[in-house]
Amino acid sequence: MKTLGTLAPLTTQLVEIQHLTSAASLLSWDQETYMPAGGGHARAEQIATLQTLAHDRFVSSDIERVLSQWVDPSIGEAIDSRGDGWDESARALLREVWRDFSRAKKLPSDFVKRLSRESSLAQQVWSEARKKSDFRMFLPHLKTIVALKQEEAEYLGYRDTPYNALLDTYEPRATVAQLRPVFAALKARLVPLLNRVMTSSIKIDDAILFLHYDTTRQMEFGRLVLTAMGYDFERGRLDLSAHPFTTSFHPTDVRVTTRAYERELPACLFSCIHEGGHGLYDQGLDPARYGTPLGEALSLGIHESQSRLWENSVGRSRPFWRCFYPLLQQMFPEQLGTVDQDRFYAAINRAKPSLIRVEADELTYNLHIMMRFEIEQGMIEGRTRVEDLPAIWNDKVNSYLGIVPPTDADGVLQDVHWSLGAFGYFPTYTLGNLYAAQLYDQVQKEIQNLDAEIEAGRLTVLTKWLNQKIHRWGRMFTAEHLMQRVTGRPLSPEPFLEYLEKKYGELYELS
Amino acid sequence: MKTLGTLAPLTTQLVEIQHLTSAASLLSWDQETYMPAGGGHARAEQIATLQTLAHDRFVSSDIERVLSQWVDPSIGEAIDSRGDGWDESARALLREVWRDFSRAKKLPSDFVKRLSRESSLAQQVWSEARKKSDFRMFLPHLKTIVALKQEEAEYLGYRDTPYNALLDTYEPRATVAQLRPVFAALKARLVPLLNRVMTSSIKIDDAILFLHYDTTRQMEFGRLVLTAMGYDFERGRLDLSAHPFTTSFHPTDVRVTTRAYERELPACLFSCIHEGGHGLYDQGLDPARYGTPLGEALSLGIHESQSRLWENSVGRSRPFWRCFYPLLQQMFPEQLGTVDQDRFYAAINRAKPSLIRVEADELTYNLHIMMRFEIEQGMIEGRTRVEDLPAIWNDKVNSYLGIVPPTDADGVLQDVHWSLGAFGYFPTYTLGNLYAAQLYDQVQKEIQNLDAEIEAGRLTVLTKWLNQKIHRWGRMFTAEHLMQRVTGRPLSPEPFLEYLEKKYGELYELS
Repeated sequence: MKTLGTLAPLTTQLVEIQHLTSAASLLSWDQETYMPAGGGHARAEQIATLQTLAHDRFVSSDIERVLSQWVDPSIGEAIDSRGDGWDESARALLREVWRDFSRAKKLPSDFVKRLSRESSLAQQVWSEARKKSDFRMFLPHLKTIVALKQEEAEYLGYRDTPYNALLDTYEPRATVAQLRPVFAALKARLVPLLNRVMTSSIKIDDAILFLHYDTTRQMEFGRLVLTAMGYDFERGRLDLSAHPFTTSFHPTDVRVTTRAYERELPACLFSCIHEGGHGLYDQGLDPARYGTPLGEALSLGIHESQSRLWENSVGRSRPFWRCFYPLLQQMFPEQLGTVDQDRFYAAINRAKPSLIRVEADELTYNLHIMMRFEIEQGMIEGRTRVEDLPAIWNDKVNSYLGIVPPTDADGVLQDVHWSLGAFGYFPTYTLGNLYAAQLYDQVQKEIQNLDAEIEAGRLTVLTKWLNQKIHRWGRMFTAEHLMQRVTGRPLSPEPFLEYLEKKYGELYELS
Repeated sequence: MKTLGTLAPLTTQLVEIQHLTSAASLLSWDQETYMPAGGGHARAEQIATLQTLAHDRFVSSDIERVLSQWVDPSIGEAIDSRGDGWDESARALLREVWRDFSRAKKLPSDFVKRLSRESSLAQQVWSEARKKSDFRMFLPHLKTIVALKQEEAEYLGYRDTPYNALLDTYEPRATVAQLRPVFAALKARLVPLLNRVMTSSIKIDDAILFLHYDTTRQMEFGRLVLTAMGYDFERGRLDLSAHPFTTSFHPTDVRVTTRAYERELPACLFSCIHEGGHGLYDQGLDPARYGTPLGEALSLGIHESQSRLWENSVGRSRPFWRCFYPLLQQMFPEQLGTVDQDRFYAAINRAKPSLIRVEADELTYNLHIMMRFEIEQGMIEGRTRVEDLPAIWNDKVNSYLGIVPPTDADGVLQDVHWSLGAFGYFPTYTLGNLYAAQLYDQVQKEIQNLDAEIEAGRLTVLTKWLNQKIHRWGRMFTAEHLMQRVTGRPLSPEPFLEYLEKKYGELYELS
């Protein structure tokens, strides 16, 4: 039986390439956290060189040569010769490296460099444009990025729509044709549920979350929760950035960022828990597999399932706050000393259409995603002019949520993704929510007293389960296979909808 | 006439290589400032890959091919064909690239990787060992590094002593044979001067510098002085690290670090000014020449001249404190409100043999360097066993300064340099002091009212002079040529000795 050891001539090269992409990730992290403003142009060039070099080395004839000994290019799977096959890990590694290789091979080196440079610059302009709420400032950059992503889709090839080529980058094997009915099914039950909530006689007042909260203490509390979740600060950090994110340079150096506003408690609190979920995934990957697909996250949807599971299934649950609310009260006695736990629980779960995706409640969040999914398909398919984006955005928000953004900063400029060229990324957020609910449903069956453990602050029982079932496997399985393996069934929106109907039914006393 | 434009096929490649080394520098900066402790091993590997790749690309046949069209390898200078010569910039660029290339070409790629990895690890162990004052912990790593540096000297080749090969890395064209008489001349006048100071009836009490000083305010003051010096925070940052340093990823992103202790005002104050001097040099390099020798600092000695000029000639002078002392008093009224300027000036200039190089006064500083210069020659020449280092160190400190370190943390473990493999680096500190005094002597002649400008806080008149005379030229001239060009004479210890004799003669009332 041939094993991973046989693949050393390949994996040694992959690890060196990973060093380049890990370095590029650190340069990006630094750009978002500590880089002086004047350093932006040079930084964009440096990142572009690293990414191009990583790409060039990956598609080099050297890698192709070793890879083609072992993989049948017509099926993209390891070649099994009779009596001397590959074990499961080696087969999976070859399958996934081949997938990456055959995709990367289609992208010209010059294109990779242009995209890297343009997106690094576009991100910096976006950040300024958002501050000034000035879409026109961002427009030429966004046009360039859209054109580049259309070009990329042509290189990669696709069925039905160029958008599928981009979607496949973030959620391997997903297509518009598969997602559309799932999203439609979701919408069909979410919208009536939201309507019932909005017309309920129960009105939740969440003003207590928007009193003055010292940001240093908010960060302290975030750190405390992260520690309780099992996020290891010996192998991680928490910093501030405009847009919270998680990045990893190795399982021993995984960093999360958050934002903290003085008059908005949920922003810092829930981004810490959310990014912590991402961070646990990256810290839970197998360091011995670093640089290979078996040491990488499976897909963005699965990654997002980890953050949403922690943020929502855990972080907005009663058992969690039975443990942590007294601590939060101690930290903010003036603001919360006289507020009881039920009132706090209701406040953090209040559902109401709002403008900003990352602050949306669980009911409306996926509506934000659906409209982005539609808009970005339009852009990539060339049906939507980039100039018209603010108008289209505002129209869609109105039709999905019944509200209109007063400024583009609260509208079309709110997300970093398009500046980065991350088209096809948004749907993975909704997939993440669905995966999360299905996984949490399963873990509650397997760990009978999970609520009691969480209430006692022993969050790491959950972390360990996730490590065992998901993190440590990397890209060993496809998402479909993983869900089947862990939950015994394919992905379904049912657990998510049931969870919401139960939670909001109780909270808003829906009959 | 052929110009820099002709060299584009070369410089384009050099800039890409610089992106790799700039990325490696950011990874190192991060390692010293924000990296979580657990990330050290992976980081060492990542830096090693970047440095090896940069090395491999630099010595590649591609670069050799374009370079060999233009450079005569027997003399290492541009080939001038009649009627179509190179202009001065292009000649200088070719001379310096050839120098780097012919040195790099001698080092095997595998050696570069081993050295990078080992020194990155050794530095992390050194940092722990220093905390614990445990030389034995550091010993095996130091042995490895010394052996690697001996190996490096053999690859590079040398006359007289392998130490010359290493010295040449940091101070191009310098040799032990040239330095020894300069150092001897220095010692011959420094030691008697120090003796006269020590036996003077004037006793300076510097206890006011070691009261309790809030470190946040110390950093604030450091920032204020840096800003006054013309250090541009739009293109730079100030952070904390165990060992203060300056690093640059491009003239638009130059970072300085400092340390700050609650009961030690000079540590933060003078490292800020010192590193600021380095930072101004790097910010003053020509961004259009980034990646080529004309966009790089000339030598470590010249670099150190910039930091020492600011730290000592300016930062320990009366005119400087006439401007800044009232501000410092405002910041620390309890500690300094009743201390007059003369007393403060005397305190920061008190001369006394002490254990820690970076905190040494101007009189004793070079004695610290001389003993290191002797010790590291012994190690590289194989005359000194690394095991015996603590004993040899303590013996030398005693003979040079008349004191003995109570712990290795205050002795042989105090400097980061050897862990990094930076043998041959220390002498550039003394060269820096000599260059600084000679340059400052010159600028005082050229800017007649310099003291008055400094007293009025207009430090940038000096910055501009240094920009014009030194920074913007990069490696256009050799150090010898630059000194001749700027000061009209070759390097001499005379200005430094005169400066010290005058300053300390007045302070200690020496007849």
